[in-house]
Amino acid sequence: MNTFGRIFKLSIFGESHGKGIGIVIDGCPVGISLKEEDFKSDFDRRRSGARGTTPRQEPDLPKILSGVYQGKTSGAPIAIVFENTNTQSRDYDEIQDIPRPGHADFTANQKYKGFNDPRGGGHFSGRITLGLVAAGYIAKQILKDIQFEAKVIEVGGSTNIQQMIDKALAEGDSVGGLIECKVSGLPIGLGEPFFDSVESIISHLVFAVPATKGIEFGSGFEAARMHGSEHNDIFVDETGRTITNYAGGINGGISNGNDLVFRVAIKPTSSISKTQHSYNQSKNKTEDFNIVGRHDACIALRIPVIIEAVAAIALADLFLIQDK
Amino acid sequence: MNTFGRIFKLSIFGESHGKGIGIVIDGCPVGISLKEEDFKSDFDRRRSGARGTTPRQEPDLPKILSGVYQGKTSGAPIAIVFENTNTQSRDYDEIQDIPRPGHADFTANQKYKGFNDPRGGGHFSGRITLGLVAAGYIAKQILKDIQFEAKVIEVGGSTNIQQMIDKALAEGDSVGGLIECKVSGLPIGLGEPFFDSVESIISHLVFAVPATKGIEFGSGFEAARMHGSEHNDIFVDETGRTITNYAGGINGGISNGNDLVFRVAIKPTSSISKTQHSYNQSKNKTEDFNIVGRHDACIALRIPVIIEAVAAIALADLFLIQDK
Amino acid sequence: MNTFGRIFKLSIFGESHGKGIGIVIDGCPVGISLKEEDFKSDFDRRRSGARGTTPRQEPDLPKILSGVYQGKTSGAPIAIVFENTNTQSRDYDEIQDIPRPGHADFTANQKYKGFNDPRGGGHFSGRITLGLVAAGYIAKQILKDIQFEAKVIEVGGSTNIQQMIDKALAEGDSVGGLIECKVSGLPIGLGEPFFDSVESIISHLVFAVPATKGIEFGSGFEAARMHGSEHNDIFVDETGRTITNYAGGINGGISNGNDLVFRVAIKPTSSISKTQHSYNQSKNKTEDFNIVGRHDACIALRIPVIIEAVAAIALADLFLIQDK
Amino acid sequence: MNTFGRIFKLSIFGESHGKGIGIVIDGCPVGISLKEEDFKSDFDRRRSGARGTTPRQEPDLPKILSGVYQGKTSGAPIAIVFENTNTQSRDYDEIQDIPRPGHADFTANQKYKGFNDPRGGGHFSGRITLGLVAAGYIAKQILKDIQFEAKVIEVGGSTNIQQMIDKALAEGDSVGGLIECKVSGLPIGLGEPFFDSVESIISHLVFAVPATKGIEFGSGFEAARMHGSEHNDIFVDETGRTITNYAGGINGGISNGNDLVFRVAIKPTSSISKTQHSYNQSKNKTEDFNIVGRHDACIALRIPVIIEAVAAIALADLFLIQDK
Repeated sequence: MNTFGRIFKLSIFGESHGKGIGIVIDGCPVGISLKEEDFKSDFDRRRSGARGTTPRQEPDLPKILSGVYQGKTSGAPIAIVFENTNTQSRDYDEIQDIPRPGHADFTANQKYKGFNDPRGGGHFSGRITLGLVAAGYIAKQILKDIQFEAKVIEVGGSTNIQQMIDKALAEGDSVGGLIECKVSGLPIGLGEPFFDSVESIISHLVFAVPATKGIEFGSGFEAARMHGSEHNDIFVDETGRTITNYAGGINGGISNGNDLVFRVAIKPTSSISKTQHSYNQSKNKTEDFNIVGRHDACIALRIPVIIEAVAAIALADLFLIQDK
Repeated sequence: MNTFGRIFKLSIFGESHGKGIGIVIDGCPVGISLKEEDFKSDFDRRRSGARGTTPRQEPDLPKILSGVYQGKTSGAPIAIVFENTNTQSRDYDEIQDIPRPGHADFTANQKYKGFNDPRGGGHFSGRITLGLVAAGYIAKQILKDIQFEAKVIEVGGSTNIQQMIDKALAEGDSVGGLIECKVSGLPIGLGEPFFDSVESIISHLVFAVPATKGIEFGSGFEAARMHGSEHNDIFVDETGRTITNYAGGINGGISNGNDLVFRVAIKPTSSISKTQHSYNQSKNKTEDFNIVGRHDACIALRIPVIIEAVAAIALADLFLIQDK
Repeated sequence: MNTFGRIFKLSIFGESHGKGIGIVIDGCPVGISLKEEDFKSDFDRRRSGARGTTPRQEPDLPKILSGVYQGKTSGAPIAIVFENTNTQSRDYDEIQDIPRPGHADFTANQKYKGFNDPRGGGHFSGRITLGLVAAGYIAKQILKDIQFEAKVIEVGGSTNIQQMIDKALAEGDSVGGLIECKVSGLPIGLGEPFFDSVESIISHLVFAVPATKGIEFGSGFEAARMHGSEHNDIFVDETGRTITNYAGGINGGISNGNDLVFRVAIKPTSSISKTQHSYNQSKNKTEDFNIVGRHDACIALRIPVIIEAVAAIALADLFLIQDK
Repeated sequence: MNTFGRIFKLSIFGESHGKGIGIVIDGCPVGISLKEEDFKSDFDRRRSGARGTTPRQEPDLPKILSGVYQGKTSGAPIAIVFENTNTQSRDYDEIQDIPRPGHADFTANQKYKGFNDPRGGGHFSGRITLGLVAAGYIAKQILKDIQFEAKVIEVGGSTNIQQMIDKALAEGDSVGGLIECKVSGLPIGLGEPFFDSVESIISHLVFAVPATKGIEFGSGFEAARMHGSEHNDIFVDETGRTITNYAGGINGGISNGNDLVFRVAIKPTSSISKTQHSYNQSKNKTEDFNIVGRHDACIALRIPVIIEAVAAIALADLFLIQDK
């Protein structure tokens, strides 16, 4: 349930307000340089700090417990732990009876019969994605000649990103965004037909990232409006290079050597400052309520590095499976 | 690679022009009525026969080799085999050197070093999805109080489906389509946070279906354009019912009791009658070529029952995991 | 449940008296020569025919449905099916109410709530191991420089095998046996510490073979009686060669380059001609009963090739995992 | 590689002299009482302290990082970490060039190309089994009506255990032992035919425990010497109770309601005080060497609680799979 991968295997754990969160990464090749500071750049992108993001005020300090010896991966599982230092849960006490719309409060409570940790979303917290970013960093080192680049290309349906965010902030509201990820330099042949297609593995991981609502590869949803004569990418040489790239770099589930391109739709942050309405389970009626505290006006801004990470994780596993 | 599932496990096999194709389904509960004729209705939907589809002229006769005793599932693996009767490969001989645009010819040849069966797409053939439809039928029996309904809602960007298909046919071209799937009557609590979210498992399987380019749940890509104040579905009673359903029936990866809704973008059939251009690997140059034979003008018409099938497979596995 | 392996994956199916049995083998490298006749030598060893074995009177004719193109493995899943031709179930009708001692009749009936196919042991039949032998043959081709040799080294506690079998036959009884398997030419480094140790994977598969009661590697149970000063195998050169081989070719779960040696204890065939006693579930009392038909006096005679097969399957998977 | 289980899933990590070791346990049912002190009794059995054991002088203090909320399991993954406090590695520096006989020094170095942590056996250290004992404690709570009892029944081939140990100690040597594990109160129906037989899953995990050389169920190796007429356990009533228990509580891979009984052979500790001989890789010759420090004269004494743990882990997973 909280594990993924066939050779490059992940196991994640932790809750927002518990003692700590982390990840165990198994199946990493030996000899990759790795130290705790290496993650900083990717972690900083996840924290963002840009206008429209309100990062939790605690440092993301990873502690590598195992799997690294004399600065290099040793072949043993790599366990990375992050202590939770900011675990006061005052903000959440008042709304225990009211499942927050858009959040997992209701479903988690039902599924786990009330035993789940509700503080800050518990195990459903976006904070758990820190482990994915760490694993993604390592995956990128495995795929060292491959470039990953994900960025927000639209917010609130506009390419004037800052304007849309400012507007949402002013209204105490949040706004969704669109992320595009491009992977260049992929070898031909990664992925498998059917269940382990590149799209299957990447989408599986992308939907593990909270707030994602859709994914499309290459032409994506536009493909449903196109004709075959225009959609078919023409091969122009023996390397498999095509003029157009409606395929998004994948044919039959397998990388074809062109850029892998996919886009991910991110919903607006569920926690907003505006007064909302929901069902109060102890009062047996719907009522207005407010979520106290400050939140990301546009969570999409913090997600590109996570999308890069899961793409790298997916491709590293497929690479290690293929590389036989 | 060709297996999927944790409890309800599938293993598929076969090539378009080989001796046969099939599926092995493990982990099915005992006592479910099953006979070979039961699949017919779903298989007929996949064959379609509607204008715009050109089903292969062979009957889809399943042979249940194991796992059913006295008309009911026995707890042992269910193997279902379909003989290939129409396996002449004349049509494909001429174009061996020219990888067909949009198909897996190029990637398969590279990945399998030329050892793959190229006839009719070999193992990459859409014919392999017959096994998925069979497994989907069984999954639906496991989830007997749950309704699945998938249908084409748009072709070529229009809701005038027949018109768009006629136009494509007249031009010797093909056209893409959009499928919507709705699942009603789901219990609350299926799915897991992160890697085994309902979206992760369904999307994993949906992208195992050839020709899919995108998937979105609930609000989907529209979410990227929305504000939190409108996107947050308001809970109105203790059952978790919400007025709107932008979540598509899922919060935190877990079913919330509302309808599960998702849409899938299907690209236009890659095989078209129009003259195309591609790289000829033996002549070392690009050239015009034609694909002989008749093909689906709109493959999307045949896919709704496959989408229902993979949704049922995903949910049956999550149901059997959850039902502890 | 009926699947095994990480890269070289198996899925088995079938019942003794159903339409057929078989196996799907996924993850096999491309380019391995394979035709249906190739299995014959290994199948003949399983059928035995030696005094003391009573092979079922039907030919073991494999039908390769998929995964082989122009005589070589194609990278697609290999499905191999065996029709059951001798499926009359007369012999079993009389004893439906009496679970046969030593067989799975009682546990299968309980676990599957009476829905399981009871004829000839149904899915629990030793006949299902045909698929394992087929997969083992393929695994041996993957490991082409490695030699597998398993043989019966003791029957009924004696090395005078034929004498013990004749005695059991004369008494209408059966007798157990001991099998030793030696694997030579293994590369150093297969296997993983802990859960995927060579011993873990091999023992997992060996206990999938009906009638096995124990397994030991190298010194095995004798190790419990030894001192460290004698048990420690001394390394004599840089290749890891040791004088003694109490380790059985494995240190820390990983092959060390010396011969892999293990022994498997096989119980006496449960079906015997002698009158037996069991509980009659419809009469609510214990009573005498006889098992009609002819049976193996020493099933161990037919098992060496199956033990070789599962060893090869285990090592092929570890080899494909390691070979990165 | 370092993960196991289908529903009740484990992921272990750590090295003997690294920062810490631990385990992540996923798929644990909600509502089980769990606090850090609960493990103490099982941990103390593993530390032993009896004459013949030389436990590492550091406390085994578990830190539960996640998965427990208000004293009960929450449904989220349970991460348990143990800091390594005694990580001085002086004792190992001298013998870097000489692979210790019986240890994984040679194979680990080869497999991981010299990148592995060699200090104290690194990831191969028996210390890693602490996590298994923790998981076993939790598994026992899942199986709360089932009793597990494992104990040493022989050391050095004698039932006069203390005498054999004293003798080994006096000689600076070590000695092997035999452990028997009995599990009472198992429901009928756990386990699956073939790959997921009770024996397969238990043996898989038992051979994950360093120093195990063999396992046998019920009659075990004695079965190879028996006749069917004596080995077949006679059912005496409708509950499946049998007079004898040569089956060891399992028929066809499935628990039959009688006691599950198996025995495990443990080799003598590889580290001994006596002078040994091995190949010196830097000097290119064999030479005498001594292992400095104090070691367990009979590691078998510390293993019964680990055997109970892995039995409980195996059965908890099969129970959660079956309990549908």
